[in-house]
Amino acid sequence: MIPIPHLRNRLFCPGPTPVPQRTALAGLETNVYHRSAEFKEVLIRCRQGLRPFFGSKDDPIIFTSSGTGALEAALVNLTDEGDEVLVVNGGKFGERWTKLAARYRCKVHEIAIDWGESPDPEQLVARLQDEPKIRAVFLQANETSTGVAYPVESIAKAIRAINQDVLIIVDGVSALVAHEMDMQSWDIDCVVSGSQKGFGIPPGLSFLALSERAKSSLSQRPRFYFDFEKEFQGQQKGESAWTPATTLLFSLEQSLQELNHFGAKNMVSYHARMAEACRQAVQALGLKLFSRRHHSQALTAICLPTDIDGVALVKHAKSKYGAYFAGGQDQAKGKIIRIAHLGIFDQFDLLTAVSAFEFCLRDFGYKFDLGSGVAAAMLAISNSDPDSR
Amino acid sequence: MIPIPHLRNRLFCPGPTPVPQRTALAGLETNVYHRSAEFKEVLIRCRQGLRPFFGSKDDPIIFTSSGTGALEAALVNLTDEGDEVLVVNGGKFGERWTKLAARYRCKVHEIAIDWGESPDPEQLVARLQDEPKIRAVFLQANETSTGVAYPVESIAKAIRAINQDVLIIVDGVSALVAHEMDMQSWDIDCVVSGSQKGFGIPPGLSFLALSERAKSSLSQRPRFYFDFEKEFQGQQKGESAWTPATTLLFSLEQSLQELNHFGAKNMVSYHARMAEACRQAVQALGLKLFSRRHHSQALTAICLPTDIDGVALVKHAKSKYGAYFAGGQDQAKGKIIRIAHLGIFDQFDLLTAVSAFEFCLRDFGYKFDLGSGVAAAMLAISNSDPDSR
Repeated sequence: MIPIPHLRNRLFCPGPTPVPQRTALAGLETNVYHRSAEFKEVLIRCRQGLRPFFGSKDDPIIFTSSGTGALEAALVNLTDEGDEVLVVNGGKFGERWTKLAARYRCKVHEIAIDWGESPDPEQLVARLQDEPKIRAVFLQANETSTGVAYPVESIAKAIRAINQDVLIIVDGVSALVAHEMDMQSWDIDCVVSGSQKGFGIPPGLSFLALSERAKSSLSQRPRFYFDFEKEFQGQQKGESAWTPATTLLFSLEQSLQELNHFGAKNMVSYHARMAEACRQAVQALGLKLFSRRHHSQALTAICLPTDIDGVALVKHAKSKYGAYFAGGQDQAKGKIIRIAHLGIFDQFDLLTAVSAFEFCLRDFGYKFDLGSGVAAAMLAISNSDPDSR
Repeated sequence: MIPIPHLRNRLFCPGPTPVPQRTALAGLETNVYHRSAEFKEVLIRCRQGLRPFFGSKDDPIIFTSSGTGALEAALVNLTDEGDEVLVVNGGKFGERWTKLAARYRCKVHEIAIDWGESPDPEQLVARLQDEPKIRAVFLQANETSTGVAYPVESIAKAIRAINQDVLIIVDGVSALVAHEMDMQSWDIDCVVSGSQKGFGIPPGLSFLALSERAKSSLSQRPRFYFDFEKEFQGQQKGESAWTPATTLLFSLEQSLQELNHFGAKNMVSYHARMAEACRQAVQALGLKLFSRRHHSQALTAICLPTDIDGVALVKHAKSKYGAYFAGGQDQAKGKIIRIAHLGIFDQFDLLTAVSAFEFCLRDFGYKFDLGSGVAAAMLAISNSDPDSR
């Protein structure tokens, strides 16, 4: 007998996240001209639908690119060569801001924090006070490599208490939908996100919103594809500067309709419940979180038993169970597993992720009561059910 | 806060079963003429791919109809008005054979068995000896309404020991892929199945295989759409008599390719493992099976606690958890729940079904350790894993 361990693959990695069939089906609409009046309405509805998740004054603009494209756009449009910038670097994505800023010849000041940690607002305040020339602060809302959600609201408020000019630029690629974002009341200048995370559609689109401060601080750098001014003007009328990924926009429209039906606040609460259930499972399995505080609501990073090779476990999960987990990167390589609970990802997806993880742990010889993680997660889900009878 | 209990629906009813995305995508091929040489090859490959699941000498024929259409086809093509037939009636689908035979003016002898029971081969033998004019025996391989799989092999062998002429006609609609079927060595004359059960594609196609005995026993009744002779001749060359459901055939070709990659025997073993895991969950939850013996590998029928209204529970499962369970029919209405584990349905689908059922039981006030059913199922799955490390 050959084993038939799984009959389809399942995504538990922090993006791409699962795309519901109805969303994928919407993306089958290929019979469209992107300069037609009908399509302009689609783009406008997408921008409107994105806004509640950014808490921005204007509707966000949409680029056809990965999230990294929009990170670059933010840096290029909002800094000039030689500008001093501050980057919070507590993982792979903090590092990406540093690399981007250095590549574009900014002078980078870094707040390096241990992986698994989050920055204290006071650290940023002190650094800005020490370095008054800093023009922009770059950070993550959610550091995907470590499973830590930075306290963006506290950080922004602490900065604004001492500085009304510095630009605060947030990588919200894996945070939005799972975490609250309120650009207006927190006074944040630029937030970037992407399609294949909380928004539950395939990769290929990125989203970006700006404050008034950002719009009046545009740089002098050369740019063409990623040009804020050109996009903001065109997209007000439903026209992207360049040909957009039309099928993805149809999927986005469908997904946003559903996300807004539930509401941005409820989606955040739902992600909080799923994240808590996942942490309860981790505890029941006798394992530790990699994140030391400010645990992400988008994914959970789990320290594996020291005698288990995380690279092998992630590979095994894929080949034997069709379960795509993410492993650790760089210093966390082989030591952790990251389970996302992000986007159109419900309680049964979470329970499946935990059960697949448990099967893997058992296959690798870890001693525990099989099913105890799932049971703990079920109890957390049931006890936090706002609609329980 | 409004509750967001589930973000997509899940099928745990005994058909339609889940259709993988790749199978659904294959069915998007609409640009085809059904009399083209290319499409004839598709029909031929589908027929070839079906054969291992029937164990038939010839490749099965394919009708564009529900399973019931093919049941009627079997009755019309293989009996004449006034013929005496024997029907095993142990549930809704046994009853359907009786209704069909009566409507077409056969003289029906019935072996009525209690719901949840299976027929003894000796009962059929005795009846055939008492009534030597009986020309055909109709029964289910799997009685979907009760979760009982009739012992078709034993029954057929017992009958053949005393009678080489009677036609044995089997409704295998919900049995095939989950249960072994070997028409040739068991000497069975006609087996019917459908697309939306074990074969994992949407509803709309039915499949039917015949023995040599059946092919030389065709009736004199008028028939047009469901005509065995016409279909057998045409489909040898890849031509169905009437326009076939082309998109479903593309999906079927895709699904059969996968099912045959695993192999018919392995698919049966896999279903046996899933069914056993489901029964272990039922036991851990302190509930009883509705089936008294010969438990189906395609679905599990579970007696609910007497103070729980099964109709309300099935409705609640759908509205709150997006979980489609089947309730009981007729005498079992409100008393049982039926969970299918059929088709392209893997261990994680089963665990999801059990967890959704557990949430419902808790919502309805049943006292038990939440998660205990899932844990029992996980243990059964892990312990029966042929590939365990």
